[in-house]
Amino acid sequence: MSLTVVGSIAFDALETPFGKRERILGGAATHFSLSASFFSRVNAVGVVGGDFSEAEWDVFRRHSVNTDDIEIVADGKTFFWSGRYDYDMNTAHTLDTQLNVFETFAPKLSESSRNAEYLFLANIQPTLQREVREQCPNAKFVAMDTMNYWITSAKDELLQTIGVVDCMIINDAEARQLTDEPNIHRAARKILDLGPKALVIKRGEYGAILFTKDEFFVVPAYPLESVFDPTGAGDTFAGGFMGYLASHDEITGAVLRRAMIYGSVMASFNVEKFGTERVDELDYPEINERFRDFKRMTHFEDIPFERASSAA
Amino acid sequence: MSLTVVGSIAFDALETPFGKRERILGGAATHFSLSASFFSRVNAVGVVGGDFSEAEWDVFRRHSVNTDDIEIVADGKTFFWSGRYDYDMNTAHTLDTQLNVFETFAPKLSESSRNAEYLFLANIQPTLQREVREQCPNAKFVAMDTMNYWITSAKDELLQTIGVVDCMIINDAEARQLTDEPNIHRAARKILDLGPKALVIKRGEYGAILFTKDEFFVVPAYPLESVFDPTGAGDTFAGGFMGYLASHDEITGAVLRRAMIYGSVMASFNVEKFGTERVDELDYPEINERFRDFKRMTHFEDIPFERASSAA
Repeated sequence: MSLTVVGSIAFDALETPFGKRERILGGAATHFSLSASFFSRVNAVGVVGGDFSEAEWDVFRRHSVNTDDIEIVADGKTFFWSGRYDYDMNTAHTLDTQLNVFETFAPKLSESSRNAEYLFLANIQPTLQREVREQCPNAKFVAMDTMNYWITSAKDELLQTIGVVDCMIINDAEARQLTDEPNIHRAARKILDLGPKALVIKRGEYGAILFTKDEFFVVPAYPLESVFDPTGAGDTFAGGFMGYLASHDEITGAVLRRAMIYGSVMASFNVEKFGTERVDELDYPEINERFRDFKRMTHFEDIPFERASSAA
Repeated sequence: MSLTVVGSIAFDALETPFGKRERILGGAATHFSLSASFFSRVNAVGVVGGDFSEAEWDVFRRHSVNTDDIEIVADGKTFFWSGRYDYDMNTAHTLDTQLNVFETFAPKLSESSRNAEYLFLANIQPTLQREVREQCPNAKFVAMDTMNYWITSAKDELLQTIGVVDCMIINDAEARQLTDEPNIHRAARKILDLGPKALVIKRGEYGAILFTKDEFFVVPAYPLESVFDPTGAGDTFAGGFMGYLASHDEITGAVLRRAMIYGSVMASFNVEKFGTERVDELDYPEINERFRDFKRMTHFEDIPFERASSAA
């Protein structure tokens, strides 16, 4: 089975308390693809400019990501984002955004991308997301992200798109904003009422929650004494989550739960270095060791209390 | 084995978006005692005024809490706190505090209280906490709480007290303030360096974390669509945690983990009604059912990923 992702491919300029980078590979589809590539075959759909060099293509190649549907606009420039993180590392302060070739991005899916059973619609204009979804009739599990900008500026289109996906993966502030509901559990119920069978709410340093009709599953974030660069953590989570699902023929509750853990595992690696640097160099023993760490930090024995067992 | 708690007993006046109460039973030692009483024998040490009536004593009696060491100052008034919660229910806005008989509280422990193997020093002046700890030479597991007020006004005394307890149970903002460290994992390491073998950091709607030299354990909060009254949730957590520990002869890592869950279970009930109302009416089947809910919402199978299992 294969997995298609549609979204941004970018150059990022980053400043954090731990250093800076002038121009590194970034973008939602990039972070998603690399993360998912550890678990399944990935088709990336996006657009880049003539400034996209062999060094960047090599990153995709090293992870066997199918880049046939990444359009190259030779006389254009790749989407550029510049941001700064302060000491608390929780909020990105955007310094500059140059959409460049991304401004007129019209995803063109080859037959291979259209035939994928799994599809991730990264954060792009909601109507574009829906048009991509309609191009993939065989997709049996479609997930989407969005952002505050679309909730404010294109809410009707966004609600239509939410109505045609199987899973939404958003952060807690967006879930609250979308539903106008401060309580995260009520917000989740309202989002599931819009159509998706599954909802993942990302909570940054507090981890993530999975909501379905039958499953409620909470995963903490991996304990990190230093977050080096949080850029792309959400897309890396989505990549691990969707990639793991796409390695299975059937999505059961147990598979969804492990997908939440693999998503968290991949996101925890992503923030340890700048951009894609850490995920690019990952191997399976590291991934599985961290998966076991998650088991260790959440496991307890299911022993009910009996008054008689007390010394009282 | 038995468990002694030293702390406030109060009348609270509360306003929340869900209603108000003019005068209900509250205080750290009260919430702690009721919660712990489901798991072990509890001695409560505190002080009340002549206004403390049979209705209040009945609450302690119903749960077989030993109240011999609750001093009655017949011509004084019980500690009174009045607070308001706004719609987000996260922050208590204090409207009035009347220390009354609590202002000159000097804990007097009977032999029974002094001989307890487990001791909880609820939030009182740090030097008083230390003096109580010194009165209990047989206590094999001593935990303490504190608050921002003492971190600011009595830091040296507080550090001395932290140095003579086995476990600290505080919220995340206090942990950050005490250590001047925004990262919660580094803050935890600094607190363990002060002496305690165990540290519990409470994170409100995000649950709690246990840190020891060997254990790192994360528990989410129980999902609640409505928090009715959060007053006393932290002390109710501590009561479930310490009460469960006190029902065991030996405190292993596995017991500490389950104690974290029972603490979370009890806290989740506490916030469902005003003051002590919900915990007062609890029964064991409800407690164990909610314990199983925590297992269901955190459990996943420990299956490492193998590339060969993928359809790729």
